[in-house]
Amino acid sequence: MTSLRRATAQAPANIAFIKYWGNRDHRWNLPQNASLSMNLDGLYAETTVTWADDQPSDTLVLNGESASQEALARVSTHLDILRSRLNIRSRAEVISKNNFPMGAGIASSAAAFAALTVAGTAAAGVELSERELTTIARIGSGSASRSIPTGYVEWHLGEAHENSFAESIAPPEHWALIDVIAVVSQAHKRVGSKAGHRSADTSDLQAARVAGAASRLAVCRRAVLERDFATFAKVVEHDSNLMHAVMMTSDPPLFYWLPPTLAIMESVRNWREDGLHVCYTLDAGANVHCLCEQSSADAVRSALQTIDGVVDVRMASAGQGARLISG
Amino acid sequence: MTSLRRATAQAPANIAFIKYWGNRDHRWNLPQNASLSMNLDGLYAETTVTWADDQPSDTLVLNGESASQEALARVSTHLDILRSRLNIRSRAEVISKNNFPMGAGIASSAAAFAALTVAGTAAAGVELSERELTTIARIGSGSASRSIPTGYVEWHLGEAHENSFAESIAPPEHWALIDVIAVVSQAHKRVGSKAGHRSADTSDLQAARVAGAASRLAVCRRAVLERDFATFAKVVEHDSNLMHAVMMTSDPPLFYWLPPTLAIMESVRNWREDGLHVCYTLDAGANVHCLCEQSSADAVRSALQTIDGVVDVRMASAGQGARLISG
Repeated sequence: MTSLRRATAQAPANIAFIKYWGNRDHRWNLPQNASLSMNLDGLYAETTVTWADDQPSDTLVLNGESASQEALARVSTHLDILRSRLNIRSRAEVISKNNFPMGAGIASSAAAFAALTVAGTAAAGVELSERELTTIARIGSGSASRSIPTGYVEWHLGEAHENSFAESIAPPEHWALIDVIAVVSQAHKRVGSKAGHRSADTSDLQAARVAGAASRLAVCRRAVLERDFATFAKVVEHDSNLMHAVMMTSDPPLFYWLPPTLAIMESVRNWREDGLHVCYTLDAGANVHCLCEQSSADAVRSALQTIDGVVDVRMASAGQGARLISG
Repeated sequence: MTSLRRATAQAPANIAFIKYWGNRDHRWNLPQNASLSMNLDGLYAETTVTWADDQPSDTLVLNGESASQEALARVSTHLDILRSRLNIRSRAEVISKNNFPMGAGIASSAAAFAALTVAGTAAAGVELSERELTTIARIGSGSASRSIPTGYVEWHLGEAHENSFAESIAPPEHWALIDVIAVVSQAHKRVGSKAGHRSADTSDLQAARVAGAASRLAVCRRAVLERDFATFAKVVEHDSNLMHAVMMTSDPPLFYWLPPTLAIMESVRNWREDGLHVCYTLDAGANVHCLCEQSSADAVRSALQTIDGVVDVRMASAGQGARLISG
């Protein structure tokens, strides 16, 4: 007799204000510093997990196509974590899709592993605390921990697996920030974040970046809670610059910026001097996330569209965390 | 009765392989780390100093025009150093010109203060050792110390004014390196190097950059002496990336790169992978210095000319140091 247990979850991408870059433990994705982010409304992964007793191995369909062996292996490793925690032995059929380009500076793996964790747990009929779900998602992809709680989310450093968890510091409606994303390249980046995290310690500058991260996070958390855009803008750009400084000085160096990236960053600084409430941040990719207060978002969008090399502009408000769609 | 003592000197620009960025003493330009450079043949300042007893104040003509008060003040401060050392009280008439664009990533102040020091000393009829001349030039502009000795030049950290001097580690003919300079902007940069040096300590990353500088310099010195291009390329690009990482994370951040700068850097890395002997380095400006072995220089020049945003390409071999033209 075959039992079939299925659930579907959606989880948002998120954009970090204070960046995660580098692990102190790669197997468990225990980070070198705590981080802070905002979920992106409308940019999500939707994942259906079916635990199927009669299936000989895990399967993965990604955006409508049978996934690469590499992608399947990474998902299967995460399913092993779930099987162990949920005490089940079945293989899983996983069907996942993103509604945004993968691997290009919008955190697709964060959304994917958050959705996989929430759907896989629900499909097994087990209820876990949000806090524990964030720690499990973290093992699949560090920043996935931040795609589970709602709105503005802090991922704590923690001393060990159990307390390196994420939690909401404010709901989306606390502050109507908009992420106006200038897409400069749809190409898949050459070095994925997972490999990048392993290279962080090859930079002479990583230790200095990490040493200041807790105080930058405290400044940023307070700026979010007080809706203090000027302070927010300064610390967010600085933290992004620090991460890319580490990347560019790693061995081998990682240059994620493309020529239009640089032009956009300069424009954003100028627009802010001219009075718009906008600042930039970049993940491990060439796209520029222009974080705005709502009053400035349309002007920023229009201005971005005039910059050479900007192929698309997407807007996302602060959004909810992961949620179960069915199951 | 009027006495008129005049001398003219030429001094080359230089390009640093291991960068000078940040002082431990700003008044004396005592650097935070030692540096290493190559003089650029054919890119020079030519300066005539006339000590004139009957002149009420110093005067400066720069590239055929009466200079700004700001430029005159900086030159006059350096003339005070010379007057004090040379034991003269006359004011000076200074006429200087560069044969390359100023303030755009080719070290114009290095050439200018080296030439001013050599001409001013000769015009006073005093003979000083090359070593002492480099320490005096250093007070005017740190990297000017490196534009006096010939060829490949190391500027020592030193403990005090007297021993923070520069000396040649190899003559130009030791290694036929060519600097193929991609000029991407003739515009004067917004933050001069002098102000930039003062901002270095506002970056969280400066201490880490400085901490590794002596070992990078040792690697680079050996690579120059052994004409080991692969080692040279890696350490030179890394050191440049480190300096720009510090600049971009200073308060306020200094972004010297323009969009074509980034495109050129990426191209250079690709060309080297394809077998050309080329690497890049950037000073405090947007132009990219593509350091090549002679066999690769023409190919690099041609390739640079096809990159969008490159407005000019100049080539300079390893060159001699400062020399007296007349006087």
